[in-house]
Amino acid sequence: MALRGILRLGEVCIRVLDLAAARTHYVDRMGLIEVMSDEEDRKIYCKAWDEHDHHSIVLREADEAGLDYVAFKVYDDQTLTDLEPRIQAFGLDVSRIDAGVYPKSGRRLEFFLPSGHRMQLYAEKAQIGNTLGTRNPGVMPDEGVIRGFRINRLDHCLLGGPNIDECGRLFQEVFDFDLSERIEDEESRDSLAMFLTCSTKPHDVAFVIQPEPGRFHHVSFLLESATDVIHAADMIGKYRIPVDVGPNRHGVTRGNTIYYFDPSGNRNEVFSGGYVHYPDTPTLTWDTSQMGPAQFSQDNIARESFLTVVT
Amino acid sequence: MALRGILRLGEVCIRVLDLAAARTHYVDRMGLIEVMSDEEDRKIYCKAWDEHDHHSIVLREADEAGLDYVAFKVYDDQTLTDLEPRIQAFGLDVSRIDAGVYPKSGRRLEFFLPSGHRMQLYAEKAQIGNTLGTRNPGVMPDEGVIRGFRINRLDHCLLGGPNIDECGRLFQEVFDFDLSERIEDEESRDSLAMFLTCSTKPHDVAFVIQPEPGRFHHVSFLLESATDVIHAADMIGKYRIPVDVGPNRHGVTRGNTIYYFDPSGNRNEVFSGGYVHYPDTPTLTWDTSQMGPAQFSQDNIARESFLTVVT
Amino acid sequence: MALRGILRLGEVCIRVLDLAAARTHYVDRMGLIEVMSDEEDRKIYCKAWDEHDHHSIVLREADEAGLDYVAFKVYDDQTLTDLEPRIQAFGLDVSRIDAGVYPKSGRRLEFFLPSGHRMQLYAEKAQIGNTLGTRNPGVMPDEGVIRGFRINRLDHCLLGGPNIDECGRLFQEVFDFDLSERIEDEESRDSLAMFLTCSTKPHDVAFVIQPEPGRFHHVSFLLESATDVIHAADMIGKYRIPVDVGPNRHGVTRGNTIYYFDPSGNRNEVFSGGYVHYPDTPTLTWDTSQMGPAQFSQDNIARESFLTVVT
Amino acid sequence: MALRGILRLGEVCIRVLDLAAARTHYVDRMGLIEVMSDEEDRKIYCKAWDEHDHHSIVLREADEAGLDYVAFKVYDDQTLTDLEPRIQAFGLDVSRIDAGVYPKSGRRLEFFLPSGHRMQLYAEKAQIGNTLGTRNPGVMPDEGVIRGFRINRLDHCLLGGPNIDECGRLFQEVFDFDLSERIEDEESRDSLAMFLTCSTKPHDVAFVIQPEPGRFHHVSFLLESATDVIHAADMIGKYRIPVDVGPNRHGVTRGNTIYYFDPSGNRNEVFSGGYVHYPDTPTLTWDTSQMGPAQFSQDNIARESFLTVVT
Repeated sequence: MALRGILRLGEVCIRVLDLAAARTHYVDRMGLIEVMSDEEDRKIYCKAWDEHDHHSIVLREADEAGLDYVAFKVYDDQTLTDLEPRIQAFGLDVSRIDAGVYPKSGRRLEFFLPSGHRMQLYAEKAQIGNTLGTRNPGVMPDEGVIRGFRINRLDHCLLGGPNIDECGRLFQEVFDFDLSERIEDEESRDSLAMFLTCSTKPHDVAFVIQPEPGRFHHVSFLLESATDVIHAADMIGKYRIPVDVGPNRHGVTRGNTIYYFDPSGNRNEVFSGGYVHYPDTPTLTWDTSQMGPAQFSQDNIARESFLTVVT
Repeated sequence: MALRGILRLGEVCIRVLDLAAARTHYVDRMGLIEVMSDEEDRKIYCKAWDEHDHHSIVLREADEAGLDYVAFKVYDDQTLTDLEPRIQAFGLDVSRIDAGVYPKSGRRLEFFLPSGHRMQLYAEKAQIGNTLGTRNPGVMPDEGVIRGFRINRLDHCLLGGPNIDECGRLFQEVFDFDLSERIEDEESRDSLAMFLTCSTKPHDVAFVIQPEPGRFHHVSFLLESATDVIHAADMIGKYRIPVDVGPNRHGVTRGNTIYYFDPSGNRNEVFSGGYVHYPDTPTLTWDTSQMGPAQFSQDNIARESFLTVVT
Repeated sequence: MALRGILRLGEVCIRVLDLAAARTHYVDRMGLIEVMSDEEDRKIYCKAWDEHDHHSIVLREADEAGLDYVAFKVYDDQTLTDLEPRIQAFGLDVSRIDAGVYPKSGRRLEFFLPSGHRMQLYAEKAQIGNTLGTRNPGVMPDEGVIRGFRINRLDHCLLGGPNIDECGRLFQEVFDFDLSERIEDEESRDSLAMFLTCSTKPHDVAFVIQPEPGRFHHVSFLLESATDVIHAADMIGKYRIPVDVGPNRHGVTRGNTIYYFDPSGNRNEVFSGGYVHYPDTPTLTWDTSQMGPAQFSQDNIARESFLTVVT
Repeated sequence: MALRGILRLGEVCIRVLDLAAARTHYVDRMGLIEVMSDEEDRKIYCKAWDEHDHHSIVLREADEAGLDYVAFKVYDDQTLTDLEPRIQAFGLDVSRIDAGVYPKSGRRLEFFLPSGHRMQLYAEKAQIGNTLGTRNPGVMPDEGVIRGFRINRLDHCLLGGPNIDECGRLFQEVFDFDLSERIEDEESRDSLAMFLTCSTKPHDVAFVIQPEPGRFHHVSFLLESATDVIHAADMIGKYRIPVDVGPNRHGVTRGNTIYYFDPSGNRNEVFSGGYVHYPDTPTLTWDTSQMGPAQFSQDNIARESFLTVVT
């Protein structure tokens, strides 16, 4: 009880076209901390400063941008054992990956979502802390630990693909997530986007309808305040990073947000805020008559690119 | 799984010496919304704007200030059924209170904590929403809904009494809370304060050692930002509300905070921020050699009154 | 010496197509305080809460949107006497308007800028204060005084027309303003925009090249913080007010900004911040190779509408 | 006209007991930029990032903490020529200091204020800019330029001594400052503090009554926002810098503030905000019945140390 089962999005593996350019973007500019690299496998492992686990972002050089996999951390090994048959009962094939295959990680379960995305679950990952220690830790890391866009944590992903109702059903019925918000077609009532949470956040993962499976809409990082969103926007502007949608507030989730692209065209978001969600919070439904306010509530303008550009 | 069992602190009943003065304080000045009053029982029921349940604060006129009870909302009625024998197995007597005895509320379990506090659990309460509705809700309530101190939600309580280790054990073993932080005597290692969470918040309830049982240290309300803490401080100053500790940041929880007293001497807090806690986040331990930084990290000054003044 | 001569933009008279709609926009939604109205002349007089003078915005119902005049307050009556021959020596005809012709106002000088705008100077206007009084005033007005977009003050205007170099020369040579920033054509070096200040603000008035004389680009209001810009943006979104450019930061002046339109199509801005300018601060020059960063530095996107839409 | 005469407090020379400790405090921790040092004279020259002049703070190692002098920058050399006889006519002896005696500085006038403080005026100082350049400058300096407490500028000084009415008269009559605020004894109406401005800031210099002449109450630095005051407070806490008064808001000036001490016991302030002052803004008067709200408006508590501890 309390917070159990799937805890959070713990690891996202993003394909990038050029590892050096990705390092400049994610580490030098955004300020993620590079904790490990693998020259042979062409991978960089990063974390945000206030995460305790060894890494949360893996950048892998490849010929095509996009998403390799999303991995969620669960409460304990027993949770993996309990979830495996439930996932299979839902109709998905589950592969077992031994501890150590993914560096610093315990064993994993792997399966493909109805939307075509590779998803993993794991219970163990090496912890390296947030530099403050655990005894009389204080509140402020040394200068330079928080830098760049001042990112606190990996927060959530938005995944594009077909069968998003099925994804919603999987996360609700098997993983016990709540459907916090949903966007539907005004006439057909078909689902266009599903927002799902396993915490008090407005969402831990979301799905948006896309004709092709396995598409990557964005990965999102948590900032401490709306003021830090403004600061990140200033940095994005300084480095001439391509912006998809400038500072605004989402109707869905209420978060303060800015969207931009990494050098490979993968969309990133930094955001702050959003309401507090509990399992007894009513699901919010938006329809296509209000796509502007649903997407960006400070100017009520729906961005076409926001729905169509994915990697 | 996900967020289950005890969800949150859902209702606090505070004794006040004068109901009219309490209304001025909590409603007119702080900006809580009065949803119901009971002239005969001398009670006022209030909520914060972004809570969906009917009320979260009950003010009861009495001859002595302090805390009547704290009530936590649980996931569903089955949770009550499951928890009852576990609480009894811990050694506490559990009373059953029928639905409707507490207005707008389903049935409740009631028991006394080892610290002497009356605690209740309930699964149902009437919901009246946050004025935005659930279809194309938008993000901004009408002007006037958010006012006063701009309080979003009831957040947590700090309770003073003996046997706080036992309280910690109850919340961890029976209610599946995590011990997020703990303050101990530098020499004896005795617990001086315990901070416990059932969510991603740094704490949902906390206990501080006090010789007398059942004492009320403070009730705390969530603001949206540190900027809103400053705004609340400006309002507190404007109304000459007695301040216990001015704007500062807690070492414990990292929250931005200000403490003040209601007209009956009950301590209130409004705060924002704090880190994100998960069950795999290490417990942080502070000791009496660092009471200044643990309490108030922007000036590292431990306030004597902060430990000794309770109702 | 110190701050003398022209002090500030003190009054802007805006033509609106419908007075009731304008009241809804400027008073009900933006939160300006209506201090007086003239049903016969179809005028509303408003002020921002922290201005001491009787009014700073005059809304006049007319068949065409746009700007009637801008009026600057000068240090004292002697300043008017001193400036009159200097303005004439610059080559402009100066009309004298008696005290009382403009309500609550002392005598005025009036002339037309080379850009075609009607400009006035006055030294006296009735003061009604900011509600705090002048003895032990405190810092927070009563709740409801600051509302809507939380506007502190009228700040500046951007005027569109020809001959902006001549306008710059007038303000620098006759009115002793500084040229804080300038935008020029990358090749011809022709001036496209001139930003002029008589204070420590980055600009008190600005001119942008436009083929037609006397055009109104926008009137701008000062907010206390970037957080309040976000709040205003939320309100703008709530009321579905048409947004020209969403929350962003200007390259020129560094201010946090959002642009929107009143119901008559007149552009408004609310903003905060910007650097501190002194007469010894170097003039900053931007050219058309950097129009994106000059206009909106958080996404480096120049908005076509921002240059072409005027009233 | 416009902003002329004395422009601003441009240079403060502070005596410190240990230059290395002072460097740690002002440069390493506060984040001022060390632009020059003089090992022989035991001096360090610093500036804040957004100042264009070569330096604004001089730290001089000496046997006693306190203030060597304050120096104000004036509009031009002619201003010096004009002011010299006016200062003499007020009754003060004026010394002429040749260009170059103070490094990077043109000629200076020096005299002693009625409060016992050494004051200088100069019109020229070498400019080194704020790193952004003056052509297409952008708004964000490179990472690392803004660091530590994120100080934008030197802002003002509060000086302690006798004859503060005379100081007020000097600044008003000779230097054309405005008296923005004043604290007086409730009964005798004697002046206890005088706040004077030559800009749109609430004060550029202030005087507080002290029995001994030439005492230094504090030097104050401008931050961009109240959020940055919170950040500075976090840094102050982290480095265990002794705090005089924690984060609060001043009644006088309305600024968000925190006060702390350098290693030699000199008081520093970082602040943000405050209202906009113009010559026609009424003088605000506080009296000793309201010393709490005048000093610190968020808890209305007058601090004894704040009035008595000076260097």
